Amino acid sequence: MATTTTKILELPEGSAPTDAVPVSFGLILYNGFQALDVFGPIDALNVLSLAYPIKLHIIAKSLDPVSTKTPQGFEHPGSAFSQSIVPTHTFDNAPKLDVLIIPGGLGNRPPEDVGSLLEYIRRVYPTVQYVITVCTGSYLLACTGILDGRTATTNKAGFRRVAEACPNVNWVGKARWVADGNIWTSSGVSAGLDVIFAWIEKVYGDGIAKKIANWLEYERHTDPNWDPFADLYGLK
Amino acid sequence: MATTTTKILELPEGSAPTDAVPVSFGLILYNGFQALDVFGPIDALNVLSLAYPIKLHIIAKSLDPVSTKTPQGFEHPGSAFSQSIVPTHTFDNAPKLDVLIIPGGLGNRPPEDVGSLLEYIRRVYPTVQYVITVCTGSYLLACTGILDGRTATTNKAGFRRVAEACPNVNWVGKARWVADGNIWTSSGVSAGLDVIFAWIEKVYGDGIAKKIANWLEYERHTDPNWDPFADLYGLK
Repeated sequence: MATTTTKILELPEGSAPTDAVPVSFGLILYNGFQALDVFGPIDALNVLSLAYPIKLHIIAKSLDPVSTKTPQGFEHPGSAFSQSIVPTHTFDNAPKLDVLIIPGGLGNRPPEDVGSLLEYIRRVYPTVQYVITVCTGSYLLACTGILDGRTATTNKAGFRRVAEACPNVNWVGKARWVADGNIWTSSGVSAGLDVIFAWIEKVYGDGIAKKIANWLEYERHTDPNWDPFADLYGLK
Repeated sequence: MATTTTKILELPEGSAPTDAVPVSFGLILYNGFQALDVFGPIDALNVLSLAYPIKLHIIAKSLDPVSTKTPQGFEHPGSAFSQSIVPTHTFDNAPKLDVLIIPGGLGNRPPEDVGSLLEYIRRVYPTVQYVITVCTGSYLLACTGILDGRTATTNKAGFRRVAEACPNVNWVGKARWVADGNIWTSSGVSAGLDVIFAWIEKVYGDGIAKKIANWLEYERHTDPNWDPFADLYGLK
């Protein structure tokens, strides 16, 4: 297979310099993760990797493929419909990260392995620049205590359950995403696309965020307060 | 791990009966596929699998994990940012399908293995009920000749290149998706979400399509002619 150096995505003027941006990304996976929680943000970052030299580490409790199938068996009993992703690292050997991404999913009710997953988040949080959560990824982050006293959002169908389980967080009912310092939390599933574009815009530049959204033919919600799903579930 | 039979997603009244819907899905993967082309539609179907007994077969030329990394090396030379999915079947042993899903991606310029992938599509097309393509997945379908004389759309940045390569297809420039008989083709990347919801609505019912979109907190584009990206790239 020939390897070319074709630059298929040029950085627009005004983009952050290559040597001044986060480089090392970590994605936490657990069985029963929600696929789009992962592959909304990650696909935007895949396109970013055409223009910036960035690295992804897929981190799980072991190197066994991690499945979208819920450990609890929430699927229809006649279904066999799942996908498995190959981790690159475990909680024990993952390298230093600049950005930690935590997806949600039915598999975290309750988390299948609170011990190692939450312990990993607690351990690396002080050394990362950013944490980005999608959906009930913020529930996992809240379970570590790291969100105590901070402002965050989560999946809207699960909002009351999460807020009750983690009462020391200032949970915002009506928000597509919330940025509180270095922690960016988003609402459910597809909201991961909007939070990642808002974050790319802030960190890498407005021009490259727009280019990637056009690449994905994705019409962004750019207002963090846009949230018809809060209304749907009667949240404020 | 305890297995429960909790019905976490109830079928709304008016949904198609369980025994009258497509059950066997096949997803074709090749190195350099676009992740969101796959995981937009597949995530909606993952949620559908909570309510309907459906099965997914992930089909590639071998059982080796298939990577989003482009065989051509389009990524920034300093990047190492990819994800690998585990196939369940090869082109030689995949079972009979009701629905064939073909994603796009940089890896298909040109397809890394025209011989086996296109041959597989040609071989199974007469036996499936539906084909759904996302992005330049329609380019692969067009390469088989199956789209000759039919109406279809594709990724808008790549539109002219695809239309020139496959001139016997009636390519529609301005379309989020096109349904021509049993073949549903969509525009680029995130358009896969809109085509799958339109298709679920038609085949399984309006109520379950709405429930799944709410689950994903996704605001659908329900008009197949909605396409600001056609304008962006000067297409009609």
